[in-house]
Amino acid sequence: MAADIAEQPAGMARLLDRENAAAIAAVGARVAARRPRHVIFVGRGTSDHAALYGAYLTEIRLGLPVGLASPSAITLYGARPDLSDALVVGVSQSGGSPDLAGVLTVARQSGALTLAVTNNPDSPLVAAAELAIDIAAGHERAVAATKTYTAELLALLLLVEGVRAGDGVLPADERAALEKLPQLAEEVLADNAADALAQRYRFASRLVATGRGYAYPTARETALKLMETSYLPALAFSGADLLHGPLAMADPDVPVLAVVGDGPGGQAMRDVVNRLGERRADVVTVGPADVPGAAGRLAVPAVDERYAPLLDILPLQKLALALALARGEDPDAPRGLNKVTTTL
Amino acid sequence: MAADIAEQPAGMARLLDRENAAAIAAVGARVAARRPRHVIFVGRGTSDHAALYGAYLTEIRLGLPVGLASPSAITLYGARPDLSDALVVGVSQSGGSPDLAGVLTVARQSGALTLAVTNNPDSPLVAAAELAIDIAAGHERAVAATKTYTAELLALLLLVEGVRAGDGVLPADERAALEKLPQLAEEVLADNAADALAQRYRFASRLVATGRGYAYPTARETALKLMETSYLPALAFSGADLLHGPLAMADPDVPVLAVVGDGPGGQAMRDVVNRLGERRADVVTVGPADVPGAAGRLAVPAVDERYAPLLDILPLQKLALALALARGEDPDAPRGLNKVTTTL
Repeated sequence: MAADIAEQPAGMARLLDRENAAAIAAVGARVAARRPRHVIFVGRGTSDHAALYGAYLTEIRLGLPVGLASPSAITLYGARPDLSDALVVGVSQSGGSPDLAGVLTVARQSGALTLAVTNNPDSPLVAAAELAIDIAAGHERAVAATKTYTAELLALLLLVEGVRAGDGVLPADERAALEKLPQLAEEVLADNAADALAQRYRFASRLVATGRGYAYPTARETALKLMETSYLPALAFSGADLLHGPLAMADPDVPVLAVVGDGPGGQAMRDVVNRLGERRADVVTVGPADVPGAAGRLAVPAVDERYAPLLDILPLQKLALALALARGEDPDAPRGLNKVTTTL
Repeated sequence: MAADIAEQPAGMARLLDRENAAAIAAVGARVAARRPRHVIFVGRGTSDHAALYGAYLTEIRLGLPVGLASPSAITLYGARPDLSDALVVGVSQSGGSPDLAGVLTVARQSGALTLAVTNNPDSPLVAAAELAIDIAAGHERAVAATKTYTAELLALLLLVEGVRAGDGVLPADERAALEKLPQLAEEVLADNAADALAQRYRFASRLVATGRGYAYPTARETALKLMETSYLPALAFSGADLLHGPLAMADPDVPVLAVVGDGPGGQAMRDVVNRLGERRADVVTVGPADVPGAAGRLAVPAVDERYAPLLDILPLQKLALALALARGEDPDAPRGLNKVTTTL
């Protein structure tokens, strides 16, 4: 898991190189030419969080209505929605789960443009889809996905910005901003603040992760990593949903990880941090600036909120790894899990 | 909270009576006449779980693509998706949260058909929408929503089946099946098995709730009720997502509540219960029949899986209430919460 985490800057650079960027641009141009009226994402686990990021990008950057599909409606209940105006995107590291391939097969039959985003070009998901993007992350050794997650995020970002451009090719300023990400990721990973925080959480019995907008997928993925590797019950909420009930659970014994970035989502989170402070919750933020009322911070550089999910997750992955080790668990082989999960 | 819970059979009967059913049928006929190409639901907290139920119904029963909107894309990031072919449904007990009214306002401006489903006909959400359904649940006294949840479920079921019929009026056999629900709800509420189970969970430090398909909203709502009233960290997963990571967290000290109904979703859950058994998790099911490997069961009558969410949640609401009391908490006034939650 440590090696997978460390490979992420190189993985980002690889996905941005000429050949891989051109392949994604070609897919972006074909999507733009088909002019879908709406977009549906489908994924499970970590890839579902990447799909959620793709959904925010699609709605905000492309102005297209977006949904996250529940495969069971199609695979268990036989729903056959008319998807003729839709782009349906399946996101999966392995490309091997039958329910996702099933959704893409049904979607393609009903006239949707279908796209598989995976780390395995030879997978059933790619076979089921009309278009495919290879996230080119290389073999992921640990069961807990890390480098395939950030590769999925970056692939979806490149895709959406390419569709926005129309011909798949990113504007020069966007391209320049993205090319800084591998170096920034390297710097974030060099910081060991997450290791110290793992010591502080050594005996925590639960944890809450929260963020809004582009940062909400980060909160979800953080919770999943902590559950997978440290068996810590970790609950993720959008900052807004947290105020609709789960806030009652917060008290000084519940650590809260709050992603508070530089932008509208981060701004809205400041009110959430205040409300958590009223409940005397122990809040540690992830972001580029200290937030009043927080007990600590995992520092990440200030970038556009749209890019932040690629960096914010890095110290949180390190936290999950360090906490697992601090608790005497084996983060490379979580009990009860397989790398390819088969659900119908 | 106990009084709100007890009023649910009467609330269901009231929503099925001639006047309320006719009002919903009129809305259903107008929706059917407009022939939306896709449907977007938006809600927060408990109402988000009702919206999720509405999404399954829409996809399976109407064959329409469906999405659950993240208000923040519109309210924080200024997304202006083209919703001209969409029906956008806001679900909210109070109808008072500005972000939901904001989404419906933007959706209406972009040409969507908009519908407010609330317990307050004088609310901003109703003012923002073109159509409205009054769930007629009466004043809800407890902060934790119970009777407004089942009223939202039933209202959405009546709406979707009415749209399916075309003229808003349910087929006679469907109507007959629904008319049995108040009596069945009364019988479920008369069972006190949830009180005994609350004693068993008195010292639990966390809990997992799971279900698939139509039962997934029940798992989500169960977890929220337990967090709101008993401050128990309760995690909800679809049965499929549980196998994609969180399963690692399951061990003999983590109680699992699994909704295992009579139909495709319940059938798929049997494999999940098996996998939980391999991890020696303590599984209690909610459903009409015993499941091999489970330690106990909250009994509900066998009904179509589509109707089951209206009954399955009842013993789970009683469990949340009983557990709060067993832990010396005040379920009527959870710390840190207000009845109307304001988020932007």
